[in-house]
Amino acid sequence: MILNVDLKENSYDIVVERGILNKAEDYLNLNRRVLVVTDDLVPETYADTICSKCKTAVKVTVKSGEQSKSIECFEKLLKIMLENNFSRKDAVVAVGGGVVGDLAGFVSACYMRGVDFYNIPTTLLSQVDSSIGGKTAVNLEGVKNIIGAFYQPKKVLIDSDLLKTLPKRQFANGLAEAIKVSLTSDKELFELLETKNIEENIDEIIIHALEVKRKVVIEDEKEQGLRKILNFGHTIGHGIESQENLTNLYHGECVALGMLPMCSEKVRERLLKVLEKANLPTTIEINMETVLKAIMHDKKADGDKISVTVVNEVGEFEIKTVTHSELEKLANEVF
Amino acid sequence: MILNVDLKENSYDIVVERGILNKAEDYLNLNRRVLVVTDDLVPETYADTICSKCKTAVKVTVKSGEQSKSIECFEKLLKIMLENNFSRKDAVVAVGGGVVGDLAGFVSACYMRGVDFYNIPTTLLSQVDSSIGGKTAVNLEGVKNIIGAFYQPKKVLIDSDLLKTLPKRQFANGLAEAIKVSLTSDKELFELLETKNIEENIDEIIIHALEVKRKVVIEDEKEQGLRKILNFGHTIGHGIESQENLTNLYHGECVALGMLPMCSEKVRERLLKVLEKANLPTTIEINMETVLKAIMHDKKADGDKISVTVVNEVGEFEIKTVTHSELEKLANEVF
Repeated sequence: MILNVDLKENSYDIVVERGILNKAEDYLNLNRRVLVVTDDLVPETYADTICSKCKTAVKVTVKSGEQSKSIECFEKLLKIMLENNFSRKDAVVAVGGGVVGDLAGFVSACYMRGVDFYNIPTTLLSQVDSSIGGKTAVNLEGVKNIIGAFYQPKKVLIDSDLLKTLPKRQFANGLAEAIKVSLTSDKELFELLETKNIEENIDEIIIHALEVKRKVVIEDEKEQGLRKILNFGHTIGHGIESQENLTNLYHGECVALGMLPMCSEKVRERLLKVLEKANLPTTIEINMETVLKAIMHDKKADGDKISVTVVNEVGEFEIKTVTHSELEKLANEVF
Repeated sequence: MILNVDLKENSYDIVVERGILNKAEDYLNLNRRVLVVTDDLVPETYADTICSKCKTAVKVTVKSGEQSKSIECFEKLLKIMLENNFSRKDAVVAVGGGVVGDLAGFVSACYMRGVDFYNIPTTLLSQVDSSIGGKTAVNLEGVKNIIGAFYQPKKVLIDSDLLKTLPKRQFANGLAEAIKVSLTSDKELFELLETKNIEENIDEIIIHALEVKRKVVIEDEKEQGLRKILNFGHTIGHGIESQENLTNLYHGECVALGMLPMCSEKVRERLLKVLEKANLPTTIEINMETVLKAIMHDKKADGDKISVTVVNEVGEFEIKTVTHSELEKLANEVF
């Protein structure tokens, strides 16, 4: 299945196919110098498979986790490219989750003002979410994604076979994003998640989720308006995430929780069942006031008010502006 | 005089007007947080004038010279923006030469994946050259411009009054670029440089030079083909520049010398007179073999052969592929 993301001169294909890692050379031009970036939690064989197909491969394994999204890692990768005589015609391949993709993408955007970037996401979250949209970035002083570029990959390969090695909780983490887009924009996908076996239908779920995100990204490449719906569940979700030292929840788990107060009662009932089926949390012991304080400091906060996405019917959304106390009320109804 | 650089959603105006620094607020939206970047060789009053017009100004003065085009400076400026709570809706203004513009432009490109960038070039070279084209960058391990982005400014203000404080040799350095574009693409400008008083006609010279560069950039935003003509004189020029510890020449002076072997004899005769009038060098004591070796290592070298721009008639150019020995022959005819 090939999805074309049509962004004029920045257009690219996302190829979704089981086992595609093993024939990556049919889709990517690896007949050149290639920097293969991966992390130490991704099975080594994945990056090695790509390396074996390159004319000249330089493999870099960064530490897993957010700390690798740093200017230091960015500079380190650029130096490796420079020392290995990478030219503007060479390429970078990311083999990993969102951290690897964001870092390698930003490096690709900046080396000689841009070299070809290929993304092979290995987690469900990055397959349905961060591999599309062209957002690359690193963190600075604890602030996430504050330095980066909008830079589109030349190709994205999605191989659900790679998910077999993914821990169960990481799998659920990715499912949360699929559930999110289904709620705002894809009733059929929500029903699929409600009624069918998730593992067996994972390719269809990924494709559905990508279709929604693709539409949003095409209409809104530089993130002005419509992309806001992708932040559904993220307002309270980010607030919970900012307390991660208290909760130790994954991003998707926070989003799962964050969606609940933003749904009508009848949608929430159905959502609760899907979250349980997907092994995602449905409740949390946390001080909501602290969460809300964090939210009002968030970049999407505009003075006293904050813009949120609300779902009253599955597959439909509404953008609403709410005050701090209205948000508190919504959260308190659920938690 | 307003020149619009039409690059669709990345379009912007270059405003050329004496004294425009003092009414910058009429052209730039300074009613927000503004990072004003300058260097310690630019008269302080220039940046201070801009700061006085901003709602909230944060001024940063970097050291003059290439060493400021570093990842360290890049990170430092980003940290200052972060610590001063800059949002995506705030802006950066460069008040300086090419170094300041390249650094501040790259910072603008990356902070929150892009904030508005205004450029107020204060040297003749940056007024005619680096303020147009959207090339931003820093250096890494001694390699120039290896990390950067194509990022267009929102507006460029060119005030030739600022050139009054510019050292004579820096002025000549900028003139070399105007001479360069006149030779490949603007006969009228070349005749103006030949026959008229240069200081008195500097605005017209700047506008002519910008017009040529604008056309090239519009046709070739991401530097694939036509931009090559902007490298006229740069092949041997860069070779000479790479020996700068031997020569101590400025970029424009190297380009001036680099143009000579690339002209027909009759064009060269006229060029020599213009170079003398502009206080630019016409000859050099240097080992040509070393220069040529440096050239063949240059990024524009493609195997044994190298693509160069040649001028047989003023205002016209030809792209030729030459071998190392042909290039040597050309250089030896002149030096």
